[in-house]
Amino acid sequence: MPDDAFFEVVLRQRACRSFESDPVGDEVIGQLLEAATHAPSAENRQPWVFVVVRRDALRDAIGAIFLRAWDSGAREHSTGRLDERLLAEVDEGARGGVASAPVLVVVCGDTEKSHPQALASSIFPAVQNLLLAAGAVGLGSALTTLAVIDRGGISTLLDLPSHIVPMAIVPLGWPSRTLGPPRREPFEAKTHRDMFGTPW
Amino acid sequence: MPDDAFFEVVLRQRACRSFESDPVGDEVIGQLLEAATHAPSAENRQPWVFVVVRRDALRDAIGAIFLRAWDSGAREHSTGRLDERLLAEVDEGARGGVASAPVLVVVCGDTEKSHPQALASSIFPAVQNLLLAAGAVGLGSALTTLAVIDRGGISTLLDLPSHIVPMAIVPLGWPSRTLGPPRREPFEAKTHRDMFGTPW
Repeated sequence: MPDDAFFEVVLRQRACRSFESDPVGDEVIGQLLEAATHAPSAENRQPWVFVVVRRDALRDAIGAIFLRAWDSGAREHSTGRLDERLLAEVDEGARGGVASAPVLVVVCGDTEKSHPQALASSIFPAVQNLLLAAGAVGLGSALTTLAVIDRGGISTLLDLPSHIVPMAIVPLGWPSRTLGPPRREPFEAKTHRDMFGTPW
Repeated sequence: MPDDAFFEVVLRQRACRSFESDPVGDEVIGQLLEAATHAPSAENRQPWVFVVVRRDALRDAIGAIFLRAWDSGAREHSTGRLDERLLAEVDEGARGGVASAPVLVVVCGDTEKSHPQALASSIFPAVQNLLLAAGAVGLGSALTTLAVIDRGGISTLLDLPSHIVPMAIVPLGWPSRTLGPPRREPFEAKTHRDMFGTPW
């Protein structure tokens, strides 16, 4: 039997880049991280590491790294590729929106537990669980990777050992505005039957 | 309010590598792929492509590619790293279990839509939605990447253009045995507060 409550959470997922300042307690963070750690990973090695950042100075510094990456090329790259509404939203996120979230979860991969090439397939399912779980409890969240493209900045800031690679930053907070439905192409346009080129 | 039905699906996710031969209809496959396509992606570019393989000869050929990769190094690599039970299960999966699923979904990434380096962060959240959605409707599934390590084999078999990169193969079918609970380390062991090294 299809589980409607589950599909409702999945089908309404949206990136949130603007947050209320109200705190998000340890208990709910724990619930989300428990969900994250139930994702699959290659050889069940569970190579994920989470740094839950609440301290103001650290969030500001992460925001500055994010904005530097955005202003030094990413914005230009995205202009024309994103529609204007999404571009404005991401721009607002880079200019303080993301860092305004009361919690930033820096999701890292442990290269001593998983081959670097296999790491992404073991980390992003956990990130997705974290995002979905946030949505299930009403928290806003987003999958961001911009601040970790230059992994050095985040690594130095959070004192990460060299085998712990930052791979995503997920802001968590109560949304400051209602999010509309996600915009997606129909799955049929992305699906082939048996061989590439045979329509679904 | 936490959504219990959602968390129940997430917390019981397990890899399934042994399937009944009963067919899985287009309607349920469509429901899972709709869930998959609601995952986030960089710039909302939705660079996923799904090839839904049901034809016997293709599933057999994919099974042969899987087994070749397993026998030519992966098994040896995993021996000693996996506990004996998991190793036996993966071995059984490689020796026909995975290919016995009535449906194999080959999940690919489109390098014309997303930078190859950013592709994994846009594809594996969709894969995770697919796996969770399978669990929500009672289907068995697994995240496998072994058969796509040498992308050439799958690409030739399914006639993938060069910009369509196979990234995961997800078998789908009704489980032939009841799966136990997943085994995971507690999230607290993986979580740091503000800075790496400060325990949760």
